Amino acid sequence: MSSVNSDAISLALVEPRCVSRGNPSPRSSVLCSPTVFQNIGGGWIEAQNSRGEVGLVPEDYLEVSPPSNSRVPPPPLCPSPSQQTSNGGGDPWSAWNTDATGGASNNWASKPEGTQTGRSAAPDPWGAQSHPQAYQGPGKTGGNLGPEPWTLWWTANQSNRAILGGSRVCSNCQTFVRLPLSRFPGFSKSGPELYLLAKQLVKGSQKLSIYMGEVGPVWSYPDNQLDCVVADPKKGSKMYGLKSYIEYQVTPNTTNRPVNHRYKHFDWLYERLLDKLGSAIPIPSLPDKQVTGRFEEEFIKMRMERLQGWMTRMCRHPVVSSSEVFQLFLTYKDEKDWKTGKRKAEKDETVGVMIFATIEPEAPDLDPIEVEQKCDQFSRFTKAMDDGVKEILTVGQEHWKRCTGPLPKEYQRIGKAFQNLSSVFNSSGYQGEATLTDAMTAAGKTYEEIALMVAEQPRKDLHFLMETNNEYKGLLGCFPDTLAVHKAGIEKVKEGDKLVATSKITPQEKVTMAKRVSTMSYTLQAEMNHFHSNRIYDYNRVMQLYLEEQAKFYETIAEKLRQAHAQFTTM
Amino acid sequence: MSSVNSDAISLALVEPRCVSRGNPSPRSSVLCSPTVFQNIGGGWIEAQNSRGEVGLVPEDYLEVSPPSNSRVPPPPLCPSPSQQTSNGGGDPWSAWNTDATGGASNNWASKPEGTQTGRSAAPDPWGAQSHPQAYQGPGKTGGNLGPEPWTLWWTANQSNRAILGGSRVCSNCQTFVRLPLSRFPGFSKSGPELYLLAKQLVKGSQKLSIYMGEVGPVWSYPDNQLDCVVADPKKGSKMYGLKSYIEYQVTPNTTNRPVNHRYKHFDWLYERLLDKLGSAIPIPSLPDKQVTGRFEEEFIKMRMERLQGWMTRMCRHPVVSSSEVFQLFLTYKDEKDWKTGKRKAEKDETVGVMIFATIEPEAPDLDPIEVEQKCDQFSRFTKAMDDGVKEILTVGQEHWKRCTGPLPKEYQRIGKAFQNLSSVFNSSGYQGEATLTDAMTAAGKTYEEIALMVAEQPRKDLHFLMETNNEYKGLLGCFPDTLAVHKAGIEKVKEGDKLVATSKITPQEKVTMAKRVSTMSYTLQAEMNHFHSNRIYDYNRVMQLYLEEQAKFYETIAEKLRQAHAQFTTM
Repeated sequence: MSSVNSDAISLALVEPRCVSRGNPSPRSSVLCSPTVFQNIGGGWIEAQNSRGEVGLVPEDYLEVSPPSNSRVPPPPLCPSPSQQTSNGGGDPWSAWNTDATGGASNNWASKPEGTQTGRSAAPDPWGAQSHPQAYQGPGKTGGNLGPEPWTLWWTANQSNRAILGGSRVCSNCQTFVRLPLSRFPGFSKSGPELYLLAKQLVKGSQKLSIYMGEVGPVWSYPDNQLDCVVADPKKGSKMYGLKSYIEYQVTPNTTNRPVNHRYKHFDWLYERLLDKLGSAIPIPSLPDKQVTGRFEEEFIKMRMERLQGWMTRMCRHPVVSSSEVFQLFLTYKDEKDWKTGKRKAEKDETVGVMIFATIEPEAPDLDPIEVEQKCDQFSRFTKAMDDGVKEILTVGQEHWKRCTGPLPKEYQRIGKAFQNLSSVFNSSGYQGEATLTDAMTAAGKTYEEIALMVAEQPRKDLHFLMETNNEYKGLLGCFPDTLAVHKAGIEKVKEGDKLVATSKITPQEKVTMAKRVSTMSYTLQAEMNHFHSNRIYDYNRVMQLYLEEQAKFYETIAEKLRQAHAQFTTM
Repeated sequence: MSSVNSDAISLALVEPRCVSRGNPSPRSSVLCSPTVFQNIGGGWIEAQNSRGEVGLVPEDYLEVSPPSNSRVPPPPLCPSPSQQTSNGGGDPWSAWNTDATGGASNNWASKPEGTQTGRSAAPDPWGAQSHPQAYQGPGKTGGNLGPEPWTLWWTANQSNRAILGGSRVCSNCQTFVRLPLSRFPGFSKSGPELYLLAKQLVKGSQKLSIYMGEVGPVWSYPDNQLDCVVADPKKGSKMYGLKSYIEYQVTPNTTNRPVNHRYKHFDWLYERLLDKLGSAIPIPSLPDKQVTGRFEEEFIKMRMERLQGWMTRMCRHPVVSSSEVFQLFLTYKDEKDWKTGKRKAEKDETVGVMIFATIEPEAPDLDPIEVEQKCDQFSRFTKAMDDGVKEILTVGQEHWKRCTGPLPKEYQRIGKAFQNLSSVFNSSGYQGEATLTDAMTAAGKTYEEIALMVAEQPRKDLHFLMETNNEYKGLLGCFPDTLAVHKAGIEKVKEGDKLVATSKITPQEKVTMAKRVSTMSYTLQAEMNHFHSNRIYDYNRVMQLYLEEQAKFYETIAEKLRQAHAQFTTM
């Protein structure tokens, strides 16, 4: 099963080689070659023909294949000769399709969990050279001074990238894509005009409040912050054991009742949140999918930790945590409840920029010029922070390698050298040798212990510093899109007079646009402030943890050395 | 000036390319090509002719050239056509002759201090791959994170060795060489027979006592141990500033009156001790001579430290410290006193194996079989210890490199990364940023401080561990010769019956030999015990120092990290 609910309208994709053009915007247009389907609503589907031309096709013209066995594409739209060999050796995708579960299936509607969807290889909006999740958390490094899994992981990862080559994997291609389409022919389809010029905004929907706080616009935060614990990963199976998966227990602090979720459920939740809130709120990616080793203990542990981190961040966001789909995820009562909720969430029409229609800033309209300056400042800030975060990740990776590789090996060798010399001394046949040899052996063993400590330490401190920065790297990567949506709104309002003059909009619509863009600005600023306060909290916490653990580490080493020192006789 | 006193009998060497054959035994025969002179006493000189034949030549047959301008060799003995081009480009020696003082002089009798005499390149008796003094002490490493002088030194050293090629430099070639010559034609000239079968032993000479201590035979140690301080290096010059040198102040604890000595005086002392005591007592080499950079502060400091180490070891030895030549070196009253003493020391005839004639063990003769077993054990021990010491030196060198190179660079980068992120945070425009940014900047600075500490630390602890092991490596390298002299004595005694049967010796001489070899055995065992007690003392001390400094180092880091930690706000 893909993350598409089986009873949602869905179109089978013949050829899973998709290229996402430009930024991985929650609403950027997606071009799937050779055939693209986009249900734009109202009975129309956007598709590409064999000559590469894109156009709208009546829904009825297309054969809608059932989601579970949709190997064969609708005839008129799938002319590529490569479609039948997509599983062949020359296809860079084939490497990904042979996953750990042994499935070489090319059926995307039922591809096994763990098949690479490519979110991991999403284009870096700031063109950073490193992989978005290049840092690999706790490998089996501690104590084991052999070849480090970190290196293995890195190597594997690099080669995967090489296999992928220039093509980017598009996670949206497997799902039902709803693109907000402008009602105005002259407008970009992916812009915020849908909201700015909507004749009528959503009614009766839950409203999201923004207040003026000390730091500026802020979301209305709940009195009791939602939180949840992701724990207790268990292996499950279905189809008579043919398919295995890992299920995690998620327990929210509101009900204290655990619910079970597989990774693909988290993925479904992510897609829904991105769809519904992504225009206004940066929704960070989930931890990477994994091709192999999904059932290895270390991997499961790390994935759980990262899912926990992601859920904690989502819980902390007042808009996300109060959203119906998020609540469903945390508190569904039974399988039926879950399925019904899923279906409803997938049919939700208040998605994309229309989320702004549910936001009510309880304050006067903002000055667009001032707002623009603030946005520019924030844009520069996030870019600079992205650089800073990447610098920490880079040096942290190198430090991790050194601490788990050559450095403990050296301490081990120092320890061995002391012990070897001690053995030699022991063979001298000279009287009164024991005190020195015992002490030297103890000193040698101490350095062997230090070697182990050095190798283990990164998992105790550097790991968390890396995880936090990695999380922020992902989060920062969402801001260019969020900022772009806002900027497009501002630009549109600036064109107001021209649009009125050319009768594209009415003078009343121009006024409405200005008012609505102010709501967008409030939202963005509330997001900025939410980001800043969380950032200060997170870095304060992680730096404290890091320094505390580092201090303890050095103290323990010093203590061990003092003990070793005490064994030598004073002269 | 060479280390030969100008008024000692000396013979000019035309061609300074000398090859030392075999181990650098204190009395191994030395072959200088194309011409060798060895004053064997009694009016005879050993020399080699143009056809490579070695023979004895009456002293009167040779022209004894004055030591200061002896460029031209005595005609009949110097047929090599290369002699006139010894300063040419193809000669591996030429590189050494162009030393830091700018002198390209080939005049060995007056070669400037600092010209390579080659003791540094003495063949390693155990064939170790590394240079006897490969470890280079405190370079300009601390704080300076640029290219490390250690590497520069090593590279320079390696290339020097390459220049030397296969030829070994023979330090003896520049000096007046006294080889003990056996009076018995069938015997090896370098063996202990000179002593074992001497008709009459030295009379009236100072006697050296050996007692039976708890651990076996031990030297008679003085109540107040001699010690001295080598300090206050000063640049001096002579010949109107054409020649510069460094003079060290040496102050013994007996007189507390400082005397001045140049490196070449230490070298002279070393040669005298080697000559006089080397058959019985391992006399470790002086620290290396240096081709370039002799006047650089770091080099002078390290040489002084090593000269101090060498002097301390010599002072600690009861036989060395009580010797006339050593006392002269430490306590000469004025220049005249020094010159007179030097002349006397150079004329001393109780040299080589004859030193055993001055030793009086106050105990019954030892069982040669038992002694042989002890010697074999000690031989294995020193070989094993040599391996152990070299292992420490090897891993220590690598650790030194890491601690002064990549590791502090990494800490520096971590520090910079924290500070950079702090600057970014500072630019957020968000309220209440200062506490975090101040704390992060402090944390960053802390890691920069740690970087400096890490880079400086090896000079505070590893340095002494390396110096001690380096010293022991040198000392251990002397034992094979000391053991070989003893073994030759034992073997000779074993041949006693055969020698009597073939009338090579009288039965009375056989009895004398057995008695005298027992004295040699006492001496060797006293040396073994002296070595062991010093070794235990030295390693106890250096390990304590190392661990103490290491503990302090980690404690200081932990303390700094605690301070950095305290700057973050508790949440």
